[in-house]
Amino acid sequence: MLNIQRVENIVILGLGLIGGSLARALRTKGFAKNFIAYGHREQSLERGLELGVIDEYTLDLDEAIDRADILVIATPTLIASDMLKKILPRVKGCSHSPVITDVASVKGSLRDTAINTNGTMPGKLVLAHPIAGSENSGVDASDESLFVDHRVIVTPVEGNDSSAVALVRDMWRSTGAQVLDMDVDEHDAVLAATSHLPHILAYTLVDTLAQSNASEDIFRFAAGGFRDFTRIASSDPVMWRDISIANKSALLDTIDVFNEHLAALRQAIAAGDATGLLETFTRAKAARDSFSAMLGTRTK
Amino acid sequence: MLNIQRVENIVILGLGLIGGSLARALRTKGFAKNFIAYGHREQSLERGLELGVIDEYTLDLDEAIDRADILVIATPTLIASDMLKKILPRVKGCSHSPVITDVASVKGSLRDTAINTNGTMPGKLVLAHPIAGSENSGVDASDESLFVDHRVIVTPVEGNDSSAVALVRDMWRSTGAQVLDMDVDEHDAVLAATSHLPHILAYTLVDTLAQSNASEDIFRFAAGGFRDFTRIASSDPVMWRDISIANKSALLDTIDVFNEHLAALRQAIAAGDATGLLETFTRAKAARDSFSAMLGTRTK
Repeated sequence: MLNIQRVENIVILGLGLIGGSLARALRTKGFAKNFIAYGHREQSLERGLELGVIDEYTLDLDEAIDRADILVIATPTLIASDMLKKILPRVKGCSHSPVITDVASVKGSLRDTAINTNGTMPGKLVLAHPIAGSENSGVDASDESLFVDHRVIVTPVEGNDSSAVALVRDMWRSTGAQVLDMDVDEHDAVLAATSHLPHILAYTLVDTLAQSNASEDIFRFAAGGFRDFTRIASSDPVMWRDISIANKSALLDTIDVFNEHLAALRQAIAAGDATGLLETFTRAKAARDSFSAMLGTRTK
Repeated sequence: MLNIQRVENIVILGLGLIGGSLARALRTKGFAKNFIAYGHREQSLERGLELGVIDEYTLDLDEAIDRADILVIATPTLIASDMLKKILPRVKGCSHSPVITDVASVKGSLRDTAINTNGTMPGKLVLAHPIAGSENSGVDASDESLFVDHRVIVTPVEGNDSSAVALVRDMWRSTGAQVLDMDVDEHDAVLAATSHLPHILAYTLVDTLAQSNASEDIFRFAAGGFRDFTRIASSDPVMWRDISIANKSALLDTIDVFNEHLAALRQAIAAGDATGLLETFTRAKAARDSFSAMLGTRTK
């Protein structure tokens, strides 16, 4: 059973696809009374009002913090870090400070920013990562069902208030998401492997081919497999610049392990090692097929 | 206008997905009177008869060659090379020998086998590569519309009879495919870049993650982008072993160029070079988006 708590005010910092979809989903479930957005771009905030995604907005960060019961930092990763640096000093020592959470793809860099800014991990800062997205961005693309059956990873750390962690979990469960806990560093390593490295490889492949002399022919003759393989290279460059910087350490580790395996496979090709190649491809196919079967049993 | 020639007998060597689909498509168009399959596995050949894909089959290679007007080697790449070594000596110097063609993904290795076996390129051996496939294999998966709007690359070489080249082009046009000519080495370089390298990267990534200590978590938290990116790692390991061996030289070249670009991007991540990362990702996104727009204007 969900322990739905009625919250007065949820403040969304950064009303884009994720923040807007969260507000829509929570509003539908009646999870809070009031949805307030804070941001710099008044146009997006006005649009949020028009679309009925939020009830109010403010351009004043102090007001946003003062009124919030839950403050959701729904900005890109690096801006989330800047926001924490601004917010944490303002709530330090306040008895009625909001529960603060975020949606960024990298968690360790925000934990470090929080500890560096605050001295210790703030009890009411609970980091989380909804694994959901869309090719579209902005509040116009927001969708109340964006998180349904998607995973949301909550990464509680030592020093977190258990009631704050419980509230963030409840909030995400209300959107229809599957909420799971994970260690911060494990989260960053797993995401580096399953998401950040594939993006780096796809960007690298497309850029390599685009810079080739034969690039026109190359793209002319590429077929469906190539289209699937490179789809993620159409992702937002700013978001991936930020993730690459924020998750540097885990990403470099996973690139290095990948490179070792690629070097071994290159060596097998150079040596004409038919047995070794067949072994590697067969092992990979088995892993991919079992992953595919596993995905088949869940919706998203 | 197509110059459809009425052919008496087409012999398919290897009645799988590609050979079976070709026979079905050509039969529908009345391109030949008789479709005969040759192979080792009588069960597949019997199944081809049952399904009405072929009219007859034989287990005797000499009979297959004697009766063929067009002989289509529709086996995997390395077996196609073995077949050429058997067939070419039997037709050398014969005035009524068939036009011989193939469907393999690598062309240079077959050209080299042909020249090494025959002394010079046989005039009536015309190499070709239909860029089409399916996740399913075998004659049961064969489909008369498999090649419709797909590319077929014909790679004529010096020494080819122009009438033989024209017949192979006509045969493929009859299936509804878009037929294009390309130089053999250019074909192998372009396919290495757009198809063989992506397969190597996908196999390497999945195998790297599967061998990690955290592999269970990794696959548990992988999402849609990962599924698309790794789909080609579910491809047939034997086919990709053969391609990796047959296209070794072009594949090693393209792996090396890719590695240089990946090393540069790794360096940018390590240095926290926000500008360099954004430039690379933006350039790659632009190339992928324009590729995507280009693909949008054609069906397959």
